[in-house]
Amino acid sequence: MAKRLLLISNSTNYGEEYLGYTKPHIREFLGDKAREVLFIPYAGVSMSYLEYANKVKLVFKEMGFELKSIHEESNPKAAVAKAEAIVVGGGNTFHLVHMMHETGIMEPIRKKVEDGTPFIGWSAGSNVACPSLKTTNDMPIIQPSSFDTLGLVPFQINPHYTDGVIPNHNGETREQRIREFLEINPETQVVGLKEGTMLLVEGEKVLLIGSKTVKIIKKDQPTLEFDKNVNLDFLLK
Amino acid sequence: MAKRLLLISNSTNYGEEYLGYTKPHIREFLGDKAREVLFIPYAGVSMSYLEYANKVKLVFKEMGFELKSIHEESNPKAAVAKAEAIVVGGGNTFHLVHMMHETGIMEPIRKKVEDGTPFIGWSAGSNVACPSLKTTNDMPIIQPSSFDTLGLVPFQINPHYTDGVIPNHNGETREQRIREFLEINPETQVVGLKEGTMLLVEGEKVLLIGSKTVKIIKKDQPTLEFDKNVNLDFLLK
Repeated sequence: MAKRLLLISNSTNYGEEYLGYTKPHIREFLGDKAREVLFIPYAGVSMSYLEYANKVKLVFKEMGFELKSIHEESNPKAAVAKAEAIVVGGGNTFHLVHMMHETGIMEPIRKKVEDGTPFIGWSAGSNVACPSLKTTNDMPIIQPSSFDTLGLVPFQINPHYTDGVIPNHNGETREQRIREFLEINPETQVVGLKEGTMLLVEGEKVLLIGSKTVKIIKKDQPTLEFDKNVNLDFLLK
Repeated sequence: MAKRLLLISNSTNYGEEYLGYTKPHIREFLGDKAREVLFIPYAGVSMSYLEYANKVKLVFKEMGFELKSIHEESNPKAAVAKAEAIVVGGGNTFHLVHMMHETGIMEPIRKKVEDGTPFIGWSAGSNVACPSLKTTNDMPIIQPSSFDTLGLVPFQINPHYTDGVIPNHNGETREQRIREFLEINPETQVVGLKEGTMLLVEGEKVLLIGSKTVKIIKKDQPTLEFDKNVNLDFLLK
């Protein structure tokens, strides 16, 4: 079965409700392919896994899906093996990756999604679909055993991508940071995924969803900018 | 000899010249204790080590000091052992820490500075004076063998600290990120060091330099804010 991923930049647009803009797309993406999703809450740091799972459960319930959280499973690998769909929530990417390695679910999830089980991630959850966590915006609050992640797509996503900067502040722009990444990782391409947008990957096809453009950044090349009418399949090549 | 550190938030204030505001403080800090400094350029990613070292060398020359860059030394550990002062420049913290571990200079620098050799760092260079890199703002563009750093002070610095946010953007505030760090590292205190400020550590004494306040953030406690008239020695306890 073809690989299917919905890779979402962010849970919540500025001033909107939690997961609000994502709902029609999640509903359509899952369709009748799942009645229950397996939730990975390990990016959550400021609230308990239970609180986080309950918050997301409410939204999925509203869309017509049950939600089971992996932190309540005595055998996480078995839970992955049985999952009808896998949903990875945002939060701190380092904590998420640390826990995914620690619990041994990285490889089982990779295999399961390669075999056609739908995968949904937002923010940190989109980051881990990439080969590594190296294009996260998060603070490295914990050292994971490896920066390697699921590698379900060959490119890196920078979620919450923005050209905005903090006024009167001297940090790097996001694009400067990504170009630093490319100095060290010259073979990769980086997708700057703005808030309110997502990538739909189905087999060999990649579509942008949302009203904003996406930026594609490669070493020694000018940054490309596309809207949702452009075929992005080249990202998988 | 007492330990002496000048831990600077940032090289360049918004709209000012490179290292401009730091010069009188570096000059006074080094005084006649060094004629030549050993520069660590490993945070530099977008320019070569040579270009970076030359840029900093000009500024130190202007202040009356020679500068030798460690990347030109065939024996980096021996260069550290002979150094009259150590200067660690900003850039990407992950790259800096990766290279400091890779070249084996972490422990020699720690020992040398503990023994009284003056240490100056800005941005990533201040970060590595702390126990770990975990409060950096930088993108994890490379995986260092360890997040552990020099531990010359017992607290963590967040350089370029700001309460500002990107307008209409939904990322966490800096303080939220630091509070996430404290969830996982509850025993540590974090110093939010705003641009244009620095900490002067001499033996058991800590002073803030600069016209802005500093924020001290501890788990489950309200954030404290101090100006340069407040004794900060408690940070070393």
